[in-house]
Amino acid sequence: MTELPSFPPKDLEHVFYPKSIAVLGTNRVVGTVPHDIFVNILRDNFQGIVYPVSPKERFVSGVRAYKYIIDIPDPVDLAILVFPSTVCNLALEQCGQKGVKSAVIISAGFREIGGIGLQREAEIKAIAQKYNISFIGPNCLGVINTDPLSHLNASFARKMPQEGDIAFLSQSGALCTAVLDYARAKHIGFSKFVSFGNKANISEIDLMYYLKDDPKTKVILLYLEEISDGDALMKAAHEITTESGKPILVLKSGRTSEGAAAAASHTGSLAGSDEVCDAALRQAGMIRCTTIEEMFNNAIALSYQPLPRGKRVAIVTNAGGPGVLATDATVKQQLNMAKFSEETLSIYRKTLPATANIKNPVDVIGDARADRYKVALGGALQDPGVDGVFVILTPQSMTDIENIAEEVCDTISKYDKPVYASFMGETDVAVGINILQRRNIPHYILPESMARAFASALFFKQYRDQTPEPIAQFTDVDDATVRRLLDDARIAGRTYLPETESTKILASYGIPVLPSGLAMSKQEALALAARIGYPVVMKVVSDEIVHKFDVQGVMLGIRSDNEAGEAYDAIRRNVKVAKPDAAIKGILIEKMVEHGEEVILGVKRDSSFGPVIMFGLGGIFVEVFKDVSFRVAPVGPRSASEMIKEIRAYSMLAGARGKKARDIRSVEECIQRLSVLALTHPEIKELDINPLIVNDEGSGCFIADARIML
Amino acid sequence: MTELPSFPPKDLEHVFYPKSIAVLGTNRVVGTVPHDIFVNILRDNFQGIVYPVSPKERFVSGVRAYKYIIDIPDPVDLAILVFPSTVCNLALEQCGQKGVKSAVIISAGFREIGGIGLQREAEIKAIAQKYNISFIGPNCLGVINTDPLSHLNASFARKMPQEGDIAFLSQSGALCTAVLDYARAKHIGFSKFVSFGNKANISEIDLMYYLKDDPKTKVILLYLEEISDGDALMKAAHEITTESGKPILVLKSGRTSEGAAAAASHTGSLAGSDEVCDAALRQAGMIRCTTIEEMFNNAIALSYQPLPRGKRVAIVTNAGGPGVLATDATVKQQLNMAKFSEETLSIYRKTLPATANIKNPVDVIGDARADRYKVALGGALQDPGVDGVFVILTPQSMTDIENIAEEVCDTISKYDKPVYASFMGETDVAVGINILQRRNIPHYILPESMARAFASALFFKQYRDQTPEPIAQFTDVDDATVRRLLDDARIAGRTYLPETESTKILASYGIPVLPSGLAMSKQEALALAARIGYPVVMKVVSDEIVHKFDVQGVMLGIRSDNEAGEAYDAIRRNVKVAKPDAAIKGILIEKMVEHGEEVILGVKRDSSFGPVIMFGLGGIFVEVFKDVSFRVAPVGPRSASEMIKEIRAYSMLAGARGKKARDIRSVEECIQRLSVLALTHPEIKELDINPLIVNDEGSGCFIADARIML
Repeated sequence: MTELPSFPPKDLEHVFYPKSIAVLGTNRVVGTVPHDIFVNILRDNFQGIVYPVSPKERFVSGVRAYKYIIDIPDPVDLAILVFPSTVCNLALEQCGQKGVKSAVIISAGFREIGGIGLQREAEIKAIAQKYNISFIGPNCLGVINTDPLSHLNASFARKMPQEGDIAFLSQSGALCTAVLDYARAKHIGFSKFVSFGNKANISEIDLMYYLKDDPKTKVILLYLEEISDGDALMKAAHEITTESGKPILVLKSGRTSEGAAAAASHTGSLAGSDEVCDAALRQAGMIRCTTIEEMFNNAIALSYQPLPRGKRVAIVTNAGGPGVLATDATVKQQLNMAKFSEETLSIYRKTLPATANIKNPVDVIGDARADRYKVALGGALQDPGVDGVFVILTPQSMTDIENIAEEVCDTISKYDKPVYASFMGETDVAVGINILQRRNIPHYILPESMARAFASALFFKQYRDQTPEPIAQFTDVDDATVRRLLDDARIAGRTYLPETESTKILASYGIPVLPSGLAMSKQEALALAARIGYPVVMKVVSDEIVHKFDVQGVMLGIRSDNEAGEAYDAIRRNVKVAKPDAAIKGILIEKMVEHGEEVILGVKRDSSFGPVIMFGLGGIFVEVFKDVSFRVAPVGPRSASEMIKEIRAYSMLAGARGKKARDIRSVEECIQRLSVLALTHPEIKELDINPLIVNDEGSGCFIADARIML
Repeated sequence: MTELPSFPPKDLEHVFYPKSIAVLGTNRVVGTVPHDIFVNILRDNFQGIVYPVSPKERFVSGVRAYKYIIDIPDPVDLAILVFPSTVCNLALEQCGQKGVKSAVIISAGFREIGGIGLQREAEIKAIAQKYNISFIGPNCLGVINTDPLSHLNASFARKMPQEGDIAFLSQSGALCTAVLDYARAKHIGFSKFVSFGNKANISEIDLMYYLKDDPKTKVILLYLEEISDGDALMKAAHEITTESGKPILVLKSGRTSEGAAAAASHTGSLAGSDEVCDAALRQAGMIRCTTIEEMFNNAIALSYQPLPRGKRVAIVTNAGGPGVLATDATVKQQLNMAKFSEETLSIYRKTLPATANIKNPVDVIGDARADRYKVALGGALQDPGVDGVFVILTPQSMTDIENIAEEVCDTISKYDKPVYASFMGETDVAVGINILQRRNIPHYILPESMARAFASALFFKQYRDQTPEPIAQFTDVDDATVRRLLDDARIAGRTYLPETESTKILASYGIPVLPSGLAMSKQEALALAARIGYPVVMKVVSDEIVHKFDVQGVMLGIRSDNEAGEAYDAIRRNVKVAKPDAAIKGILIEKMVEHGEEVILGVKRDSSFGPVIMFGLGGIFVEVFKDVSFRVAPVGPRSASEMIKEIRAYSMLAGARGKKARDIRSVEECIQRLSVLALTHPEIKELDINPLIVNDEGSGCFIADARIML
């Protein structure tokens, strides 16, 4: 939530398609970054002019050098700074004087080192603002554009990657070198490749918006170590995914490093965690990957092949064992094994040997040659009950790997369904893998990766195609009351609203509360209990007591005047012992609902994503099983419904084992109301309804306890 | 549980170290299995004589052929059959007449095709028994022994693998070809390599016992599609792991194909599943892997490097991003990030540049050369607080990959701690990876694989080193009563023992039951309730009623004579409506325990592993979260304690959030008693104690309901 993305977009056209470049701070020492970057641009067939700028050198790699950028007689579209961080400010100032509008600052020694580095970064940001310069970096590897119109390798990567339609954006420069090397060996090409470093000016969001309209880019890959503006990231991702149909794959590291943040409540200890990030990325249509390899496994499926229209997979294999492994993998990814039509089976019966297994997985048997793969694959692809095919091969002595690879590619080209392959082994099958890779058939070492890639492609397809979700507006909410209660607390310097006040706020937002009243004396308590009707619950109300149970300030199941009197005294007594200094505002008398299911609803402000709504069953389900779901607000009706369904214990609400179904619709509404409340009143830092009691279908739900932190 | 392993072991010496071999059914058609196997033996430098036997050919590949094996003038140690399955019986008969004691039957067309194949397999088994022939197969790829003393490639694998100390046993032949190809590319060597096919005679268990004493083998890899004798597998694995210190890695496919088996109870639907297999393999010290790649990733760690002595890992990297990814991966595997000693930090401060991060993960910075890796790695290895090191490299422009690889290897050789490496990328880093692989440093593409391999090695180390667990003997059990109750049911043709009888059996085994009695009339019910003391529970007892709750045959929380009378009538009435034909044996009156924690204990006979004990919390914890633990009987005190601790909801028993701890020791004892009961009385097919009510620490536990299926 730091700042909104800049509109209009920063000047990225000159970053990727400059006609002239100046490399500031280059030198003649081969093998150093300042030298190599200049030479990489020069030698990698850049479609424009590159000028070396060096205070000390007369020329670099055969090209006349200039002492300062202002000495260059022609206009400069893009400046690349490789000076030490100590003089980058001066260099950038000169760029501004020269009228340069775009820069890439490779140099390290800024924010990432702390102290003086922070100051240096502030300085270059100020200079950039003064001259309206857009820049990438500092502390990055540079920029690559494989488009033949530019063919720019403004990076210290050893080699230019091949052309392709995958764009890669990385917060880590060092990881880029590994990624480029990995991709080259697998014939994976890139459209744009950017190491954006400290993103002091141009952010990953700016880059994403640029790629949204880049005709050369079909798939966007993102490596992040921190998400500074989750809101903008989600907005950009959703737009790019749904409007341009470009999938975004994210590798976010630092999954385990949270911890620390002290949590006063269940919501607090869960939200802000990696699970919120998981949920938020998925909510915006991004595909989160856990390893670099998984990211590329998914990316090639999305880049090379049509999207699956459904989850029915056929497997064609020449080996039973791998067929079983692939079946396991397919089912574990929630995909279905396709059932072949009678027609397909009859084709197989006619054309495959009697010993072949013609059920899915189709085993064409160890001595299969290309003709059998053609029949089996073609048969599966023409079957309307098949949404995609996995082709598996092991290198047995009769296996004509090369021919099979060619035949597989030829057969696939006749249909509009995704086919992925796994030629198992390494050296022997290399010739086949090579053919597959060159002809854009995604190849996987493991059936597990193949199934995961298919599931990712299916997720993207379904997300892209879903109708937009309307966000419910509630006209019956009473914002004035909420405002007043929040203001009162703020003025009184309180950061915690006790149950009575929290409940009033929630009631103002149409979230149902139980009949209740605050008793100041035993007489009032008895009168209230009689009016509400037994059984009732009694609870202490005090600003100083957050956990009422811990001080034995709660009495449940009070069924008579007699019990009510005793309970009132007991609470007073217990609290006096446990917390003698607490100012007691009264004892809350509340209707007790005996047969509802208890759930938790919460709001938490995540440092990256803003207000997050949490849903789960109470107690151990949250604490031990972490069986909760999250959505970043606003939450619409479909998302609210999905939130409830995706917890594992959903069956407890839906009516398992002869129990009645609970009123799930009323919970869906509460979630949406809570989402509006959280967005409208950002002072609410944390909110817990714990529990919300959900009655049987059609009978609504009630807040049994709630608290709000400011 | 089919049959016990054969002792003394079958004649495997002649399978792996024959001095003379006859290949029966070979031919001259290059590229066919019968020809290739003979030629593979002949050309792969076999240390003995190989004879072609072919009814049609005078010679094969330059070697004089014999029409029948009996024509060979010299003794034959090993016969390899590549005849069609239709004549294998005749060929094996002739082997017997020739006095051959060992064979490998490559031919397919036996049990795996069903029908006539089953008969053929029975025939060859009979012939083998008649002549005392041990054989591998049928339906397999063959046998490889890389030991220079034999150097036998009796398989149709394209190439002989290199020598190494990993043995690979596979039920799938086709998978072997992929594995050999994969391993060759990674310089992974093998000691023995066996495709055992239908294991009609020599089983994987026989092979494992052979490898136990094979000085050439250090690590055993096993690919299984079915576990026919889980008991023998566990026994063999435990012996090999603990006595010979050889780790066993298992890839078991068919993880999702269970289903179907109708389940009358919770235990039934869970045991028999893949989770039981998981638990059983771990219980016997085996390391279960989910992919071929994971199996080899773990195998090379175990084969190449010393075992870790603890879980404290240091990471050395030249790139921040991958350092973060590796930290995530390490923590996710339940390993700890090592904290360096003050000495180590001071070494680092002196020798590494100021910009380097000297905390774990140690970042030697992008321009690091071999000298910095030496210092960082050596520093970590000498630190007594470090149990192992992960070395990470990305190929940046200054990175002297080759030198770093050599330096890493040299440094490692001076210490007795495990070091694994990940040189990220592919082509550029290949030179370094090659050095690492040749010098036996395990190399991984992903930090995640590295961390998993370390965790596997640690698991093996801890399993191998643990003291043997005594199995408790209980002298206070009353087997006569159990026998009588089981016999009565059997004689009466009943397969289900109702609560009263099940509880008696459990009581005879010293498992505590609640005070209770069976009432035949309302008067008796009231008298019993008064004697037991309110509150009580009432339950219908009938052989025809398995699920008492479903017929409303249970009343809880009965607190007075009045309520008891009403409950008695209600149960009678409800059961009459729901199940009018059920013969009611009476109404059980039982003490109600109100504040205990409910758990489930169960026994189930798994088709592979025999009697399995299950433990979990009841209801939704079992149904939705599958939060249960399994152990194959016998279960000793340590395993019983582990079973309880490993469920996720353990904190509910251990005393979370101010609750009192429950009497876990009494549950441990129940588990052990149940284990003895299951082993002593195999007629018990299934047993459920649901729930067992566990009181506060020191106050024991009680059976609240139980049933037994025969």
